[in-house]
Amino acid sequence: MEIKVVRNILDANERIAKDNRNLFDKKGIFVINLMGAPGCGKTSLVEHTIKKLKDKCKISVVEGDIESSIDAERVSKLGVKAVQINTGGACHLDGNMLKEALPEIDLDNCDFLIVENVGNLVCPAEFSVGENFKVMILSVAEGDDKPKKYPLMFHESKVLLINKTDLLPYTNCDVEKIKKESLEINPKLKIFEISCKTGEGIDEWSEWISAQLNKLKKR
Amino acid sequence: MEIKVVRNILDANERIAKDNRNLFDKKGIFVINLMGAPGCGKTSLVEHTIKKLKDKCKISVVEGDIESSIDAERVSKLGVKAVQINTGGACHLDGNMLKEALPEIDLDNCDFLIVENVGNLVCPAEFSVGENFKVMILSVAEGDDKPKKYPLMFHESKVLLINKTDLLPYTNCDVEKIKKESLEINPKLKIFEISCKTGEGIDEWSEWISAQLNKLKKR
Repeated sequence: MEIKVVRNILDANERIAKDNRNLFDKKGIFVINLMGAPGCGKTSLVEHTIKKLKDKCKISVVEGDIESSIDAERVSKLGVKAVQINTGGACHLDGNMLKEALPEIDLDNCDFLIVENVGNLVCPAEFSVGENFKVMILSVAEGDDKPKKYPLMFHESKVLLINKTDLLPYTNCDVEKIKKESLEINPKLKIFEISCKTGEGIDEWSEWISAQLNKLKKR
Repeated sequence: MEIKVVRNILDANERIAKDNRNLFDKKGIFVINLMGAPGCGKTSLVEHTIKKLKDKCKISVVEGDIESSIDAERVSKLGVKAVQINTGGACHLDGNMLKEALPEIDLDNCDFLIVENVGNLVCPAEFSVGENFKVMILSVAEGDDKPKKYPLMFHESKVLLINKTDLLPYTNCDVEKIKKESLEINPKLKIFEISCKTGEGIDEWSEWISAQLNKLKKR
């Protein structure tokens, strides 16, 4: 009985996410679904990405949080359209939540939509919102046992950003272990080591994501 | 319709959690439900707490994770009984999961049961497992905006442990802001600043939790 309910919810979500995806395709919008634990650096990565790419493409951002509009306020300071979704308790974004937020975005003036999910290393991985692909961030302060403990998110993501490398000298986190165990779960996973504090790796990430955007345009 | 389903689940959980609670009361077992984001230091805190208290009381531990038995293995090295619950996808422990694990514990040889929840700053706060109270950990590496973004967990916890204070010189986390905004949500919240790495604050926490155990025994 419980399994049936969960399956129905996931099926219904897939239908709505597909509608979102069709709309994004029609409008030529590239969408990433950015996931990670609370405080892993999602909003900082959004800020860096905007700074690097805003002269090359038209960016909009949807921020998902249980409560507050802290993140949308941070992002809109950079001169891009930012919409805040408050889930009111739900621990992830789903297709319908994004659908409800879309009227707030000028889709005819958007090439790149960044959807920042609720801080959570579990449930966001189960739900599509209609993204091209999922991107996850893991902070080295979270430790190197996360691939084994939260495998679904590593499995569902196309990209893993290992953030806060500036903290490595002060932690016992083994980045090579994270990379090895992540690739065991998902051998195609693209991995970048970054520091949103020092800027390490941000150029590489920005160039890569920019190349993905260009691929879409050429199709 | 959706709200009804959720309410039924929460009501059913309350009944099972109450059964657990009655059993713990009968056996004189003090139970904490330890919550926090992935990598905030829950298992390290469990290890410190065991080392400090294992000569004063009989401790058992239940570890909750999506997958893996990494945490139960870590904890059982300290000579206490540790049971691993794998939730198989679920992002929190509930009353029934703990009930199912109880036959693995010798309840007649236990004074203090530590239940370590799945790493998640959202859903665990909604579910009682029959604990005396909830304890949450927040790592300073997660940043100082968490009370405003994840208020329920701060509201539901009796204790907040602000961990990884050793990393403060390398972050821009404002501990006073965390304390102020946490107390606005929950004025009775007991707060400790700790470092599981350096041991800062561990004595204060251990003495306090030991006093709570003694209070129970005197009842």
